[in-house]
Amino acid sequence: MAVVVMKFGGTSVADVERIRNVARHVKRETDAGNKVAVVVSAMAGTTNQLVAWVREASPLHDAREYDAVVATGEQITAGLLAIVLQSMGVRARSWQGWQVPIETSEAHGSARIAGVDGAMIRSRLDSGEVAVVTGFQGVEPKANRIATLGRGGSDTSAVAIAVALAADVCDIYTDVDGVYTTDPRIVQKARRLPKISYEEMLEMASLGSKVLQTRSVELAMVHRVRLRVLSSFVAPEQMAPVRLENLENIGTIVTDEDEIVEQQVVSGIAYAKDEAKVTILNVEDKPGVAARIFGPLADANINVDMIVQNVAADGKSTDMTFTVQSAELARTLDVLKAAEKDIGRFDVRSSADVAKISVIGIGMRSHAGVASQMFAALADKGINILAISTSEIKISVLIDAAYAELAVRTLHSVYDLDAA
Amino acid sequence: MAVVVMKFGGTSVADVERIRNVARHVKRETDAGNKVAVVVSAMAGTTNQLVAWVREASPLHDAREYDAVVATGEQITAGLLAIVLQSMGVRARSWQGWQVPIETSEAHGSARIAGVDGAMIRSRLDSGEVAVVTGFQGVEPKANRIATLGRGGSDTSAVAIAVALAADVCDIYTDVDGVYTTDPRIVQKARRLPKISYEEMLEMASLGSKVLQTRSVELAMVHRVRLRVLSSFVAPEQMAPVRLENLENIGTIVTDEDEIVEQQVVSGIAYAKDEAKVTILNVEDKPGVAARIFGPLADANINVDMIVQNVAADGKSTDMTFTVQSAELARTLDVLKAAEKDIGRFDVRSSADVAKISVIGIGMRSHAGVASQMFAALADKGINILAISTSEIKISVLIDAAYAELAVRTLHSVYDLDAA
Repeated sequence: MAVVVMKFGGTSVADVERIRNVARHVKRETDAGNKVAVVVSAMAGTTNQLVAWVREASPLHDAREYDAVVATGEQITAGLLAIVLQSMGVRARSWQGWQVPIETSEAHGSARIAGVDGAMIRSRLDSGEVAVVTGFQGVEPKANRIATLGRGGSDTSAVAIAVALAADVCDIYTDVDGVYTTDPRIVQKARRLPKISYEEMLEMASLGSKVLQTRSVELAMVHRVRLRVLSSFVAPEQMAPVRLENLENIGTIVTDEDEIVEQQVVSGIAYAKDEAKVTILNVEDKPGVAARIFGPLADANINVDMIVQNVAADGKSTDMTFTVQSAELARTLDVLKAAEKDIGRFDVRSSADVAKISVIGIGMRSHAGVASQMFAALADKGINILAISTSEIKISVLIDAAYAELAVRTLHSVYDLDAA
Repeated sequence: MAVVVMKFGGTSVADVERIRNVARHVKRETDAGNKVAVVVSAMAGTTNQLVAWVREASPLHDAREYDAVVATGEQITAGLLAIVLQSMGVRARSWQGWQVPIETSEAHGSARIAGVDGAMIRSRLDSGEVAVVTGFQGVEPKANRIATLGRGGSDTSAVAIAVALAADVCDIYTDVDGVYTTDPRIVQKARRLPKISYEEMLEMASLGSKVLQTRSVELAMVHRVRLRVLSSFVAPEQMAPVRLENLENIGTIVTDEDEIVEQQVVSGIAYAKDEAKVTILNVEDKPGVAARIFGPLADANINVDMIVQNVAADGKSTDMTFTVQSAELARTLDVLKAAEKDIGRFDVRSSADVAKISVIGIGMRSHAGVASQMFAALADKGINILAISTSEIKISVLIDAAYAELAVRTLHSVYDLDAA
């Protein structure tokens, strides 16, 4: 017997027929004696309709009212799933964020979960009832108002509830059957990883993998919640119910690196094509210049990713290269132009045709030569590296976007990730 | 300066454009210095979609889950209206039933309002903010779950909030511009009534007028809330804002009969065409027979309206005639058949082609001859009366449905209700 949190996203609950499919997944678990809390997103399309109404009401809208409107999406799904479960003979009850309660910060529209009181849900589970909880939302306790966590927040809701329930596993059902060594649409030989460490998953999530929301992985890592990525589109009766002794036989489990016995040096290759590169040339090299460049960008809420600085040939000025989301490029150039008085005279070059390729693996900590192997492999294919940035467990390079797929395929082979 | 509750139904908020129109009605009041709480229904169509999903999930569904799903309709409207008001420079905030709180009974799906705590809303109003409150719903405090009041419950929400706020007037905006002496689609000369008493409005509501929900009128009567019926489709800027000294110049005000100076004997003619008549013939005339007939019907939740009993020609048996909603006729006959063992042998005749015509007026209390005038007028047109039922302020007759319009027009003239 295990305590299981199951989370289903918008495409898994897109209509009542799919909600019935979700209910069969839940029934499989309760039939096996597991205690289940389900976290649901809004039916695919519903949130978009709600957001469209809000924008039609006013392009500039109060985040508190946006939250009140948009939160109804998950409330609808939760009630419908409870009804379907009951019709299958499974005792179930829906719970909205404010009823649990799931308390959040005051940042309406992108609130953080401040705490989940698991007592009521836990006692329902112990009485044999399934608790269906609305994802993506909670209640801001000071003003007693509904707050949403921002898009994708349902993953974080699921993990926070798993923490509060001391659940044995938090199963995230998606439209893919696990985490892959890289995008299978680019590399046919991409393999599903049975296990991956929190740290690696975190890098993958922040480097463009859409499987899990970054914040949910962080939260799972801090509280050591075992997270699994599974497909909701596998026939529910063909999956074995959760058994703690063999969680690894389906999907991908995200867990402590200690639990991963056979570690590969590199676990996966991530890529992001929507990057733009900005190079500032010949800016005076004096203390505070970086702050004068990046301060205004931060004030404008522009997220700067890689930053590389070089001393220029004359030894007196410096060159600075950084990347932003390509959708932000025009705004970035505007902000720099406006800040020219503070920064001093400079030249600027930019390009939206760049891609970031990242090699990720906790094995890098103990293995030397991963980076040089990467650089050599890319050079071998004639791919020029525009910038490099590294962390303890990943190396990212910026390259010409036209070579992105070639680079991913090449590195996938070089690090022995190809399926047999 | 007045405290005003404004209620808008589903057709008045059917899309964002109409919600904008509603906001202009609200702005007119705040611009005039009035303090405003707005009660809204779900956007027309939304509730139907939600109910359809619930039915698709399971034809037999848990009323608590039904409520959780269906209540989202008003929550969406309330948030959107708050956003539109803000965009027009009107300070506004939306409130869901559980936030006010509006406490209800446990009868999910058709709950009664048990109490409204007006303190928080009142303090918002006093601070110059408009409170937009979800109609049709509250929270059942024992289990802390959302409960809905049943269809049309938003009128009742509005009156309950008006009571809690000690509002000066509760304005119900609809798609008609007031209460008429009868249905203008049948009698072109029907007149809008500037004033009507609670008692008369109550009879009209229960006799088929769809303008106000019966329970809302009862609640207004008990707490002496001045209720007004207005059209939301009049251009908002062409209506004068609420001024307590002349509430009567638009719409219809429902109020104490003492406030109605010039009383007519008859205020209006109501009719209902969806009635069915059932006659039980030759049932043994002994104590308890009525209970044995109507008990099973009540158990089956069939609403019996008029009941007429006669001793049959032989003096030993009795005939019993009663009416039900025509949609319930088949089920009524089934229930009677199943109860035959208890009732004893009887013959039954039924007809769905009947109409109930009612003459309503508090003036009847002090004026004799209203009934005989009605019977004479109908006889004069050759209309046969199938059954009669009376109360202190109304007389209803059952007639062949084919004569319904003729009867209404005739009585409208007879009682001097025709517009000049």
